[in-house]
Amino acid sequence: MIVSGPFTVEPWLVRETELDLDRLAQSESLFALSNGHIGMRGNLDEGEPAGLPGTYLAGFYEKRPLPYAEGAFGYPDAGQAVINVTNGKIIRLLVEDEPFDLRYGELISHERILDMRDGVLRRSVEWRSPSGALVRVRSTRLVSFKQRAVAAISYEVEAVEAPVSVVVQSELVVNETLPVDPLDPRATQSAQEQLHGRYSNSRGLRAVLAHSTERSELTVAAAMDHLLPEDGDADARVESYEDLARLLVTSHVQPGTPLRLDKLLAYGWSARRSVPAIVDQASAALAGAHTVGWDGLLAEQREYLAAFWDGADVEVDGDAELQQAVRFGIFHSLQAAARGERRPVAAKGLTGSGYDGHAFWDTEAFVLPLLTYLAPAAAADALRWRHRTLPIARERARVLGLNGASFAWRTIHGEECSGYWPAGTAAFHVNAAVADAVVRYQDATHDEDFASGVGLELLIETARLWRSLGHHDSAGHFRIDGVTGPDEYSAVVDNNVYTNLMAERNLREAAEAVRRHSRQAAELGADEEEASSWRDAARAMVVPYDESIGVHEQDEGFTSHERWDFQATSADQYPLLLHFPYYDLYRRQVVKQADLVLALHMRGDAFTLEEKQRDFAYYEELTVRDSSLSACTQSVLASETGHLELAHDYLREAALIDIDDLQHNTRNGVHIASLAGAWIGVVAGLGGMRDQNGELRFRPSLPDAISRVTFRLGYRGRRLLVELGHEEARYTLRDGDPLEIFHYDEQIKLTTSSPQSPKIPAHTEAAPPRQPPGREPQKRRGETPDEARAAATSPSRREG
Amino acid sequence: MIVSGPFTVEPWLVRETELDLDRLAQSESLFALSNGHIGMRGNLDEGEPAGLPGTYLAGFYEKRPLPYAEGAFGYPDAGQAVINVTNGKIIRLLVEDEPFDLRYGELISHERILDMRDGVLRRSVEWRSPSGALVRVRSTRLVSFKQRAVAAISYEVEAVEAPVSVVVQSELVVNETLPVDPLDPRATQSAQEQLHGRYSNSRGLRAVLAHSTERSELTVAAAMDHLLPEDGDADARVESYEDLARLLVTSHVQPGTPLRLDKLLAYGWSARRSVPAIVDQASAALAGAHTVGWDGLLAEQREYLAAFWDGADVEVDGDAELQQAVRFGIFHSLQAAARGERRPVAAKGLTGSGYDGHAFWDTEAFVLPLLTYLAPAAAADALRWRHRTLPIARERARVLGLNGASFAWRTIHGEECSGYWPAGTAAFHVNAAVADAVVRYQDATHDEDFASGVGLELLIETARLWRSLGHHDSAGHFRIDGVTGPDEYSAVVDNNVYTNLMAERNLREAAEAVRRHSRQAAELGADEEEASSWRDAARAMVVPYDESIGVHEQDEGFTSHERWDFQATSADQYPLLLHFPYYDLYRRQVVKQADLVLALHMRGDAFTLEEKQRDFAYYEELTVRDSSLSACTQSVLASETGHLELAHDYLREAALIDIDDLQHNTRNGVHIASLAGAWIGVVAGLGGMRDQNGELRFRPSLPDAISRVTFRLGYRGRRLLVELGHEEARYTLRDGDPLEIFHYDEQIKLTTSSPQSPKIPAHTEAAPPRQPPGREPQKRRGETPDEARAAATSPSRREG
Repeated sequence: MIVSGPFTVEPWLVRETELDLDRLAQSESLFALSNGHIGMRGNLDEGEPAGLPGTYLAGFYEKRPLPYAEGAFGYPDAGQAVINVTNGKIIRLLVEDEPFDLRYGELISHERILDMRDGVLRRSVEWRSPSGALVRVRSTRLVSFKQRAVAAISYEVEAVEAPVSVVVQSELVVNETLPVDPLDPRATQSAQEQLHGRYSNSRGLRAVLAHSTERSELTVAAAMDHLLPEDGDADARVESYEDLARLLVTSHVQPGTPLRLDKLLAYGWSARRSVPAIVDQASAALAGAHTVGWDGLLAEQREYLAAFWDGADVEVDGDAELQQAVRFGIFHSLQAAARGERRPVAAKGLTGSGYDGHAFWDTEAFVLPLLTYLAPAAAADALRWRHRTLPIARERARVLGLNGASFAWRTIHGEECSGYWPAGTAAFHVNAAVADAVVRYQDATHDEDFASGVGLELLIETARLWRSLGHHDSAGHFRIDGVTGPDEYSAVVDNNVYTNLMAERNLREAAEAVRRHSRQAAELGADEEEASSWRDAARAMVVPYDESIGVHEQDEGFTSHERWDFQATSADQYPLLLHFPYYDLYRRQVVKQADLVLALHMRGDAFTLEEKQRDFAYYEELTVRDSSLSACTQSVLASETGHLELAHDYLREAALIDIDDLQHNTRNGVHIASLAGAWIGVVAGLGGMRDQNGELRFRPSLPDAISRVTFRLGYRGRRLLVELGHEEARYTLRDGDPLEIFHYDEQIKLTTSSPQSPKIPAHTEAAPPRQPPGREPQKRRGETPDEARAAATSPSRREG
Repeated sequence: MIVSGPFTVEPWLVRETELDLDRLAQSESLFALSNGHIGMRGNLDEGEPAGLPGTYLAGFYEKRPLPYAEGAFGYPDAGQAVINVTNGKIIRLLVEDEPFDLRYGELISHERILDMRDGVLRRSVEWRSPSGALVRVRSTRLVSFKQRAVAAISYEVEAVEAPVSVVVQSELVVNETLPVDPLDPRATQSAQEQLHGRYSNSRGLRAVLAHSTERSELTVAAAMDHLLPEDGDADARVESYEDLARLLVTSHVQPGTPLRLDKLLAYGWSARRSVPAIVDQASAALAGAHTVGWDGLLAEQREYLAAFWDGADVEVDGDAELQQAVRFGIFHSLQAAARGERRPVAAKGLTGSGYDGHAFWDTEAFVLPLLTYLAPAAAADALRWRHRTLPIARERARVLGLNGASFAWRTIHGEECSGYWPAGTAAFHVNAAVADAVVRYQDATHDEDFASGVGLELLIETARLWRSLGHHDSAGHFRIDGVTGPDEYSAVVDNNVYTNLMAERNLREAAEAVRRHSRQAAELGADEEEASSWRDAARAMVVPYDESIGVHEQDEGFTSHERWDFQATSADQYPLLLHFPYYDLYRRQVVKQADLVLALHMRGDAFTLEEKQRDFAYYEELTVRDSSLSACTQSVLASETGHLELAHDYLREAALIDIDDLQHNTRNGVHIASLAGAWIGVVAGLGGMRDQNGELRFRPSLPDAISRVTFRLGYRGRRLLVELGHEEARYTLRDGDPLEIFHYDEQIKLTTSSPQSPKIPAHTEAAPPRQPPGREPQKRRGETPDEARAAATSPSRREG
């Protein structure tokens, strides 16, 4: 029996069959639709009740002051926050003069379905009004992958028992009242942020509103149009005000003859263009949507997703929850980035306002690996966004006294927005993650235009940063002191292994890129002399190792620190950062999230298997996973070091983070990096895929409960299908020129005509490492494989 | 020729003979009068022009919110700031209907004198009004050392050429408009802080006002009374309003017959008592002052200071500037603390609102060493203030997960007020400074009541803190990780030598105190078992040492860090913290202020002379002295390591910091710790005095320019006079039982009848160490000894 959460377990759908108002905000995040440009939370059509109303546009933000009790040089004085723009989702309904509001009357049935193949959110409700009228409401919502500026809703209201008078109000609403998060000291501020009306107009069934932000001076236009059946008896008129536009449709609906309204929405925004130009842009997009109509938009959406899944699907037999969750993760990763087009891919995508809508290093480190193989154009666009912020990153490096570029730790527009310098200034590893993503993208796509342009410049500017940040000590070793690695329970340390190894490759790859593209590099002022200084630094890079216990130190001195007293820490004291001061976390051996272990994955080529096994076991005992950026990496390393059952558990935790709300904060948006990390857990963990040094390698190995895994990749213009069982793998090249890959240490040549099916070596499960008490994987398998398989065939409820 | 600053060089006076409005705020700080309870900046009697109006009461503060861009567990949410209370200094003058205002009319002559023997500020002005009337104004101001709640002003106005009509307005003014400091982001907030009127009354020549703060809920009453010559023709009346009380005296003054007004002031404040009670308290104090009158107050003041200087004076022959500045430093140290009586001694004393009026570790580390030997009751009171905050410090330790007590890094009332946790949380060494001051006070006074009560508890609670903060590593060494030492250009480091050695002694001394006072210790829950665990930790304390270069590491890994690029740093980039980000300062070898070198002084017993020499030379090259808490310590170690000329230069810098405004911020108040540090530089540097491990040792050695130094100490109930020449020292026990001291390594027994005059070994000046370019001592000697001596005999002007 599957006993977790309010959603059914189905391979392609996430279905909710009961409305739980306490979980409303979580489900709004899960059911959010986005194409990477427009994001709409899964708010109810009628607007209320809502957990967190949200409509977002990638890159659209407001500035806010960052206050400091004690300021210092280089602290950013302004932050940026995604803001809730014009809400076009709202379709209110009046039933016999009573508002359709699920908090009143009687909810007879409720169902919402996120359909990951159709790319829509479907809703079906039967509701009896307080005065007794019974209606059925159905809506289907989409944010178009094909038409970037367009979203649409098909809305239907039906009388069930007897005719009812209804008024349907389809709206654009600006400056909605947002809930105040009591945990966020700045929430009242954000709640006060306003959009200022610039333009308002309506004609026919259309309306458009334009608004500007106060401080960031961005302007957004939202337009809506409607399609009503020509033969209906509905009376419709539209009106517009500064912060509101509204279509009113009044009708007397008969049982069996529903009233249907198709609503088309378009958004446009700009920092530079005039209000009329932005209004025109939205209107033009609306016209495009009108041309194909609702059915056309729906067909385009299916077509887009069919092509996507053909190259991206993952099958997991034996764990139905995981099957669903992995597809959910892939789908949300796509939604976060598909049509972002040089805008940041935020940590929450466009599904919520968590983390102020900022993009972090997570995007390059966890999301781009997925996009590179499943949606490479989106990966390139995300890197082009970083490239676009280069002038800001160069200026930031200058302020920090460094060469090259220093990308923001958290940002929307490019400027550093962190108010905590040990992260915002010292977490330089974000720059290595950018370079890593560049190298991976180039290697997986052979996109030469990118490599000789955007990619080259990103590699050069990050290499320059590292070269100026580190220094050679008296013994000639290259040290990088005073930085913060991925683990946020340590900060401002010397020679963080992850940072140093990622910088090492950054320096090497940049030097290699300068060699390959010497002409273009010369235009950027980089020559062989400079490249040689990068190679020299890379060769001399310090990697701390504690000889006495035979493990790598996360950073210099780490293993000398006192261990965290896990026995004295109660379950309700996690996450630790909410219950203990920084000084205490920093001075002890306690790890928030994979750091040294992330190095074992990302720079696996720098460690022997034996080192990985010892290091993994050591850090498992210290890692509390108070971050969502950990379970996927631990899953990968558990696989590699022979702990397949543990790998399975961590994979489930990464994948189920939002469906099961494991961190209790899905209400503010889903965790895109963890969801993408679930894909990494399947492909790099169970599949053992490594894409380092220009080679594509697999070391597949499945845990007992999982009988079969398949995944698909795009690679250097080809499509690849990998099918894994317990005893055999099968690699199929679906198109393109022959390709050489590695299966374990065996080189395999694939052609389109000859799939290969090498054996998988027998696996002996290693003795499991220990985690801190109470910090074992959260989503251990609760079912036998048989039960899971059975569950996968029919919808069943998660409970509890 | 003496060429620095606008003040004359005189042994007992600081004299200003020209009014420079741009320097007004600096001179207000220098000329501030205080008894440790009431502080009055040297504002002009007439109130305007003013640099920074200021009247302060020790411990009287307002709360203010501390904002954070990103909050975290344990951050203090409220700060505290000294506020400008009722200004009783104001005596305005109307001359022939025109206000006496030095910005208008013609200033014929101006003189202000701080008299350090009389304990008064004298002023003499001749001024011609815009309409041509010539008047002479004289005033003398004092804040009584004898009558703690009392201040007084004697004011005289005289017609010089022809009779003039005058109106004298003697006032109490509340909620003065304060200038906004453009450098302080919170200044606008403090400027808005208001006192709320609670009581206002006037009768006869008296008036009293009572006000309360808004958030800290403290109430202050200020009362004034006046003495007018009974035979004068002056007409006087007094009036009072909510924020103002005013005596109006109108008179027609004749040449040769000045109008004199004596103004008596009294202050009282409380957090608990009622408004009537506080008003009564101020009125009673005023009655006391009235009884003795102005002349009585003046006589008491002289008497108090004569007794003080008899036991405290320092003579320096050969450097007139230094002679003046050292007395100035002693005087301001006394003013900061004399009648503080269990209130904090702030970094700026009561001379300005700099650092929000907070007390830091400076008080225990730099000011209490002076007070212990010159005003031991004030030293004990300052420690009793710390003791009074023990409940708050225990709670702070609990929040930080530690045992014992963790005293605030910066505070007025006891609660932590730092908004920067690497200082406010991690600079635990403040606790060792408290313990160090306890041990010194007890050793120098043999105050057994204190030792078995306040002292014992302070030692136990700080030892408990260290014991819980550190841990034993696998080799059995006791480590203190993740702390910030005195040098604020490093933070959150492992095993800071200064911290570890100070903690080591703290642990040992606490264990010894438990042994000595076992009964009282038992009442505090401390027994021999606990004391043994302190001794064990002390014995195993880690002290990092870099074998490869033969110097102690300021903290673990320090000497592996990149050196700051001093060559690339321009003069206008100091202080570095205003021009470089923390990350960059922290990761490099650059030292803001003596840290390892402070350990060489405070824990000199833990180092050999050769180690001190190597360490001092190494850290001299890295120390930029962007803090005022450095020159005095560098002076002491320069002396000890044989660099007497350098010691002399650093001593001058420490002593002249305010008279010459070396840090360009004397406007916000004088630097009490540096001024007290100048005394340390004379006594511990030139005199080589060490008071460690129960022994009193001297290793005197004078630089060439200084022909003779004398200083006086109180020690274990005796008075001691030390006279030093180049070849011989002379130790005189002025009273009390015989005393054994050490001169170099020779033990000397002193009795009141037999002063001892041992020889001073010949000195060979060692090759001077280097400082970072441009960071040499600021106040190198600019004169030959002869010139300096000549200058000392007659007032001369500092210029430029």
